[in-house]
Amino acid sequence: MRGLMQEHPLLVSSLLEHAAKHHAGAKVVSVDAAGAVTRGTWRDVAHDAKRLAQALARRGVGPGERIATLAWNTRAHLAAYYGISGMGAVLHTVNPRLFPDQIAYILQDAEDTHLFVDPSVLPVVTAIADRLPPSLRAVVLMGPVEARPALPVEVLEMEALLAAEDGAYEWPVLDEHEASALCYTSGTTGMPKGVLYSHRSTVLHAMAAIAPDVFAFSARDVVMPVVPMFHVNAWSIPYASAMVGASLVLPGPRLDPASLFKLFEEERVTFSAGVPTIWTMLLQWLRAEPARRFARPPRLVVGGTALPLPVTEGFLKEYGVSIVHAWGMTEISPLGSTNVRKAENADWDDERFLPYSRKQGRPQFGVDFRVRDAEGNEIPHDGVAFGELEVRGHWTAGAYFNRPDDPAFTEDGWFRTGDVVTVDELGSIEIVDRAKDVIKSGGEWISSITLENLVLAHPDVQLAAAIPVHHPKWDERPLLVVVRKPGTDPSPESILSVLEGKIAKWWMPDAVEFVDSLPLTATGKLWKAELKRQFKDYRLPG
Amino acid sequence: MRGLMQEHPLLVSSLLEHAAKHHAGAKVVSVDAAGAVTRGTWRDVAHDAKRLAQALARRGVGPGERIATLAWNTRAHLAAYYGISGMGAVLHTVNPRLFPDQIAYILQDAEDTHLFVDPSVLPVVTAIADRLPPSLRAVVLMGPVEARPALPVEVLEMEALLAAEDGAYEWPVLDEHEASALCYTSGTTGMPKGVLYSHRSTVLHAMAAIAPDVFAFSARDVVMPVVPMFHVNAWSIPYASAMVGASLVLPGPRLDPASLFKLFEEERVTFSAGVPTIWTMLLQWLRAEPARRFARPPRLVVGGTALPLPVTEGFLKEYGVSIVHAWGMTEISPLGSTNVRKAENADWDDERFLPYSRKQGRPQFGVDFRVRDAEGNEIPHDGVAFGELEVRGHWTAGAYFNRPDDPAFTEDGWFRTGDVVTVDELGSIEIVDRAKDVIKSGGEWISSITLENLVLAHPDVQLAAAIPVHHPKWDERPLLVVVRKPGTDPSPESILSVLEGKIAKWWMPDAVEFVDSLPLTATGKLWKAELKRQFKDYRLPG
Repeated sequence: MRGLMQEHPLLVSSLLEHAAKHHAGAKVVSVDAAGAVTRGTWRDVAHDAKRLAQALARRGVGPGERIATLAWNTRAHLAAYYGISGMGAVLHTVNPRLFPDQIAYILQDAEDTHLFVDPSVLPVVTAIADRLPPSLRAVVLMGPVEARPALPVEVLEMEALLAAEDGAYEWPVLDEHEASALCYTSGTTGMPKGVLYSHRSTVLHAMAAIAPDVFAFSARDVVMPVVPMFHVNAWSIPYASAMVGASLVLPGPRLDPASLFKLFEEERVTFSAGVPTIWTMLLQWLRAEPARRFARPPRLVVGGTALPLPVTEGFLKEYGVSIVHAWGMTEISPLGSTNVRKAENADWDDERFLPYSRKQGRPQFGVDFRVRDAEGNEIPHDGVAFGELEVRGHWTAGAYFNRPDDPAFTEDGWFRTGDVVTVDELGSIEIVDRAKDVIKSGGEWISSITLENLVLAHPDVQLAAAIPVHHPKWDERPLLVVVRKPGTDPSPESILSVLEGKIAKWWMPDAVEFVDSLPLTATGKLWKAELKRQFKDYRLPG
Repeated sequence: MRGLMQEHPLLVSSLLEHAAKHHAGAKVVSVDAAGAVTRGTWRDVAHDAKRLAQALARRGVGPGERIATLAWNTRAHLAAYYGISGMGAVLHTVNPRLFPDQIAYILQDAEDTHLFVDPSVLPVVTAIADRLPPSLRAVVLMGPVEARPALPVEVLEMEALLAAEDGAYEWPVLDEHEASALCYTSGTTGMPKGVLYSHRSTVLHAMAAIAPDVFAFSARDVVMPVVPMFHVNAWSIPYASAMVGASLVLPGPRLDPASLFKLFEEERVTFSAGVPTIWTMLLQWLRAEPARRFARPPRLVVGGTALPLPVTEGFLKEYGVSIVHAWGMTEISPLGSTNVRKAENADWDDERFLPYSRKQGRPQFGVDFRVRDAEGNEIPHDGVAFGELEVRGHWTAGAYFNRPDDPAFTEDGWFRTGDVVTVDELGSIEIVDRAKDVIKSGGEWISSITLENLVLAHPDVQLAAAIPVHHPKWDERPLLVVVRKPGTDPSPESILSVLEGKIAKWWMPDAVEFVDSLPLTATGKLWKAELKRQFKDYRLPG
């Protein structure tokens, strides 16, 4: 028996409609690359978005057509978010900081027909002018430029497109399962893969994001996303803020501490979200001058990787700023889990909770977790056993764009995150390794990160990496690759001695090799894939 | 182009699964009619619900079958909520306080096959033993009784049904549009009408309910619904608390201030919701003894009608308890709007906000409002013009059960609430009348409630009612029916003089009639339908 409730699709456009109708007093403030500030309201954004939809329709853009953006957090980008998705096309956000090869590949793979570009990012486009996809019909400049670029496609101006329309436009009533946005993962191995969000997944994800245990958004909030709108929809903030009628402050590309602090104070920002680097730099900058105090301490969310404990403590104890750790992935829209107190630890004081809060936490409703070990069995929740985290839910990807049958998806419908985690008694996960980096010895898993962290306690060790090498009986055994501190000369036995008593005996590396340096990625992370390649033919002694 | 996200239905059972898996430490405390306390967790509730689903399946209960409950806020009722809806049947909650005629009618109309009854409500069932619907196969006792009732159907015990099952049960994956629950309106005119909620509408409604601007539920909350589970799903609290992993305190039928305060303190309740009467009585009881203080002041939500301002102020200023006004209807699941500060009035202090907070407020995302005047035009948002409130949204009814083509639903898909409201500059609605009570004069509307409130300022007026009477030219004109205070004898002119300068001239009542008493409903409200009947043939003078 079917229920007798009204049936309306969950649509991205309805978020903007709600904000424009019921929260016309909330502000939308935007800072461009030159530092100029534009002030408006959700009603202004809705007017721009509708005019953009009209302009795209006039250009013949049809349902499902991919429209790319290369832009910062600005109001023009926000209008593109809603105008493109709202009219039935697919908003394809592209990270301007990727290598030109990757950007060219992504545009080719998505077959974008239009590319919206922030003027400050134009050199990225001219650099790949000869590799723009055949599908591309026009580049749309999102602001004034000094000289029109020479490109093999039509070049348009967003301002002129909008000026030609009147905004008298009704959003189409789409099927909520239609695609609304496309974002490529920035995986360090292999080419990026596209995740194709739907209107339904986007709206449900925003409903989850506003909850008190996630972003806790209210209509009194002034929200400043530092996380970029070019990656995973700025963690849903452009949608979630419209849903509750919060004000929005879009800081553009200037994310240095002084610029951010100025916006925090002048715009009375109550909430922001970003990666650890941003908040670590902000704390250092604050501490450099005692007069730098928040008039009203904002709430912060951090994601990407865990924020070092001294930073979390510094913000809370010195500045009254509380920070929530969130974990997510492009494939999860991105919100997977947050670590906030629950019934079992509601009464933990900060001394006890802060160190614990760096774990990745528990999923909100709409996301489910499964953690399985090397044999495919679910692990016990003891904070020690580990396995690969699999995710299922309303805003988790079921497949990649243009890549049927990717092994990241299990036969029974779960997404393999590639993260190896423990689960503790309170149900909080903690990432202990990447699945591709664990050492698979005799059918059991050894955490490379655990070995590395322990070995770093040796006074003579500067850097260390634990990698698998082939073993005829155990398949893989751990090899420890160490960079010594200058002027020291520890023995392999001395290095391994710090592990004794701290790990299971069969975790003990079979050998130690000393090197002068370890390969690093462009962002300074240990590049394990390259290191494994270097030691591909390594033969264990004896 | 279809999105590539996982597709899972939004199901009531998934709320309980989430709480049982990720919030096994949250407590569920239940008080029965005798005051006995049962303690457990969401995992226990899930075990009970699954066993109940098994028992119902064993009895042949199929998809869409209506299963009624006549029960208070107890854990057995909570298990029935999830067990019945989760297995694909329809949870039909019935208000034990309705007249026996109404209960018999509702059971007949719904064609329930099973009736779950709290032992304390058994007399209600025996009173209609001869009018139970032919569809009814069994009455299920939700607790021990002294003597088994003599009924013309099988009598079962819930405890025995559960004891026969092992709980090894997988919830079926239903279509989210399938019906999950049925609740009848308690309209004062005409027979009750059934609202048939779907799994989708129920889950989306719960997602909206947990938001900071509505109930603001977190996993640290201890939630005590005083609003009954037999009416409009206790405003979603049984679902919303599971969604976030909050603890739940179910107070049973004892809702006197002393019993409630004991639970607030002993169970460390952080949130409760109820009608004005409950909170007014609690405040009076608290004030009677200075030692009665909350160790941790809870948050309260009030709905039904507005709480008098002195009560809201008393709670906040004397006890630190903040109260949010919510407005809803059975047809809206019930949450329609709340009145909490937004961008425009975020900085209003309590002196300014508290009187304002008694307005019905603004809709959350998922609900939309339209207010139209007598000519069907949308009214200006000036706080003065008024019209009938119409509602549309994901958890608003589209039709009544068994009643196709009810005029409550417009041709273009809106639900007519029957409430006449103003909308102010901030978008807050305020109910000024019922649509059936406004006086329609010359195509324009006159608010009966406005006239009555103004006339009550006359020192000699005890009660007043403004009702429409027939007029050959204007269709309807207002007649004022007044009960004088004992010992006074005001003239009609004196009565009308208090209206001068406060209303438009054409609102002035054409006549005043004095009576000894006004007809009241069983709950003490002015019974306008009866008064209109009494004055049906009234002829205006001149």
